[in-house]
Amino acid sequence: MPSTQLQFADHAAHRAWLAGQAALPAGFRVGTSRLEFVPREAPKPAKMTLTLVVLDRPTDAFALAFTRNALPGAPVVIGRRRLEEQTLGAILINNKISNVCAPGGVEASERLCAAVAAGRELQPAQVLPCSTGVIGWSLPVDQMIAALPAAILAGGSVLPAAEGIVTTDLYPKIRRADVGRGAIVGFAKGAGMVEPDLATMLVYLLTDLAVPRAELRAMLTGVLADSFNAISVDSDTSTSDTVALVSSGRVPAPEGDAFERALRTVCTDLAEDVVRNGEGVRHVIRVAVTGAPDGEFARALGKAVVNAPLFKCAVAGNDPNVGRLMQAIGKHVGRQALGVDLSRLQARIGGVEIFSGGIFRLDPAKEAEVAAHLRAAELYVSAPSPEGVFAPPVDFPPHERAVEVALELGLGKGTATVLGADLTHEYVSENADYRS
Amino acid sequence: MPSTQLQFADHAAHRAWLAGQAALPAGFRVGTSRLEFVPREAPKPAKMTLTLVVLDRPTDAFALAFTRNALPGAPVVIGRRRLEEQTLGAILINNKISNVCAPGGVEASERLCAAVAAGRELQPAQVLPCSTGVIGWSLPVDQMIAALPAAILAGGSVLPAAEGIVTTDLYPKIRRADVGRGAIVGFAKGAGMVEPDLATMLVYLLTDLAVPRAELRAMLTGVLADSFNAISVDSDTSTSDTVALVSSGRVPAPEGDAFERALRTVCTDLAEDVVRNGEGVRHVIRVAVTGAPDGEFARALGKAVVNAPLFKCAVAGNDPNVGRLMQAIGKHVGRQALGVDLSRLQARIGGVEIFSGGIFRLDPAKEAEVAAHLRAAELYVSAPSPEGVFAPPVDFPPHERAVEVALELGLGKGTATVLGADLTHEYVSENADYRS
Repeated sequence: MPSTQLQFADHAAHRAWLAGQAALPAGFRVGTSRLEFVPREAPKPAKMTLTLVVLDRPTDAFALAFTRNALPGAPVVIGRRRLEEQTLGAILINNKISNVCAPGGVEASERLCAAVAAGRELQPAQVLPCSTGVIGWSLPVDQMIAALPAAILAGGSVLPAAEGIVTTDLYPKIRRADVGRGAIVGFAKGAGMVEPDLATMLVYLLTDLAVPRAELRAMLTGVLADSFNAISVDSDTSTSDTVALVSSGRVPAPEGDAFERALRTVCTDLAEDVVRNGEGVRHVIRVAVTGAPDGEFARALGKAVVNAPLFKCAVAGNDPNVGRLMQAIGKHVGRQALGVDLSRLQARIGGVEIFSGGIFRLDPAKEAEVAAHLRAAELYVSAPSPEGVFAPPVDFPPHERAVEVALELGLGKGTATVLGADLTHEYVSENADYRS
Repeated sequence: MPSTQLQFADHAAHRAWLAGQAALPAGFRVGTSRLEFVPREAPKPAKMTLTLVVLDRPTDAFALAFTRNALPGAPVVIGRRRLEEQTLGAILINNKISNVCAPGGVEASERLCAAVAAGRELQPAQVLPCSTGVIGWSLPVDQMIAALPAAILAGGSVLPAAEGIVTTDLYPKIRRADVGRGAIVGFAKGAGMVEPDLATMLVYLLTDLAVPRAELRAMLTGVLADSFNAISVDSDTSTSDTVALVSSGRVPAPEGDAFERALRTVCTDLAEDVVRNGEGVRHVIRVAVTGAPDGEFARALGKAVVNAPLFKCAVAGNDPNVGRLMQAIGKHVGRQALGVDLSRLQARIGGVEIFSGGIFRLDPAKEAEVAAHLRAAELYVSAPSPEGVFAPPVDFPPHERAVEVALELGLGKGTATVLGADLTHEYVSENADYRS
């Protein structure tokens, strides 16, 4: 569930709100630098932004989570090693090329870490490298190192970093929670290839609140399941997904669970932001599963629904084709949980009961009601350019409404809420020629 | 692998070829009848075709396979019972409404069976009902029964039946194999919601060759794994998938495995036809997996590749974005087979090695070669209408080329070949407003 129901009239209004979220916690500075280069593998000029997050003092209070993809990027390979390091001092992030299975990829990222460390009284192993973008290409390391000095570090706002890490995102994503005298500020990048399986995309959670390393790590693991692991834009799992939670330790943390609750809120909201700004997303779909045998079953069923292409297309078209919803449920149970009793299954869309007791409960009035619910959750009206290219006409989130699907299984106490999105012409336009 | 490399210049050429395939085996007659009606659930006029296949004499030699979807249609529920019957005398097929979880759905299909049986010296239990179309709506049983007499039965050609069962298919699909003095003639319907998990879509395999019931059933099970269970258009599994293999027993079958080989050829070719004519398909993708630990692993990996949306989009755009192929492999192994060693993985597209020894093997010349391979496999050029609607400009298969992906794992002797398709604007146009 979102902690907010924001809506924005235009880009400027959204940007003003972002600026209000963006105050950097004490102990961090950020800077960015841009470069142009020609990839070795496909000689068309490309642009890259380097984003640098530096701690005033290295910290031992950091937690990292990574993709479950079995062919991870070099930065993920290195990042897993960084978990063993005593302290973290800086994070270097680049977009455009994800440095996955490229020849010499690990060495390339390590050279970048060394360049960041040089002159900062850091060791290369205190620098976390992160890359996102095209899979398979090689980083232009020399040009990146040459561009590093132009990343002028400043405190004050995380907005330059949130803008620096994006690829096909329409807008930067920032969420904050103020806790006691400190804050957690999170920013995220992620638009396509989003069905994280452990972490997701690139997510940075910066806090000045002093929480010990072990607690940070345990809390991050706990929070991921209900936030970044409960979303899917397109069922694909990136090779680069990374979530970093870093504390500068400048402010005492309050007693109790205030920090963990705030972390959960920031992660849940950021996860929803990522879906809402997913590639080509015109409807966010929220599936609330209750009465499942357990939470894992509930989450898997929710994922199956938001990953079913025909249901996603029906939502895109504001078409109350509820049969496709039930097809997705039957597909999942038939493959993954054969024998589970669906006789008590009740399904609602936008509060309207469309299935119970083994049969559909449909009539023209309900069709109209469900269609109206779908239309109300639409983020923008789809329209092609004269050339037949579909591009979202907004660069801000117009509202936070979603298509609300409720599935009650009547089997147990397991629940989960999963966020997904429709399948649109805008998604195909974005991805059928992403690199050109 | 396809047994043919056909290509057709236009609809007329394809139709002439179909007519040549369509001679009905001895002992069968077919007829069709059309009706118009207003569905109870969404009062817009709709059209339906009834297709009737009748054996001259009921036969005990029949095999049936059904969807694994846990919310199957009423005809599937009834069809499973028919497997226990001694003989089968007729098949009634309707399109437009699939009769899935509709109130009174089983009774509706049984009433139709009774109407077919009446006056034909058949019992209702000797009639197999099949329905395809919108999920959740109720069959207009009275109007269907009234339309039945107009289905005038004739021998000679299966083409009217192959045309009668289609929904969003662009063209009918028929394959035949002549064996000894008899033949197997198969026809299939299926365009979207195609990732069969046991059987697929609606497929009818009629033969006059006398093969006993038990052998027919064993052979069908064996052949399905490599044909209809090795394809996916969009990863969705229909609630109505049915494959029926029926022998009239009029002609002695030759000794040896000639019948089984012919059955395999017909099923494999029909399965490829279904993919090639899948909703919005502009490229067929064939993934040949070798060196897997076993065949099941190979098939699951192939399915994961052809179901990865971002790879499908890249293929749609003739974009040699091979990173998305490796992402799909890593996603699957990371989720389903953690620990499997990918260090010997070699990947080729169109014969071009793009990955081996853990790293990408890319250069601009290979990019160009892979792009050319993708373009050569394109079935038609995508172009929107002035309103931004994308519809395939062909109603015939222009060629039988495919995007050829070869994955060698270096782990064992398991192999599989899986067929899938790209993800296109035409798919979204078809499915974002399918019912209107």
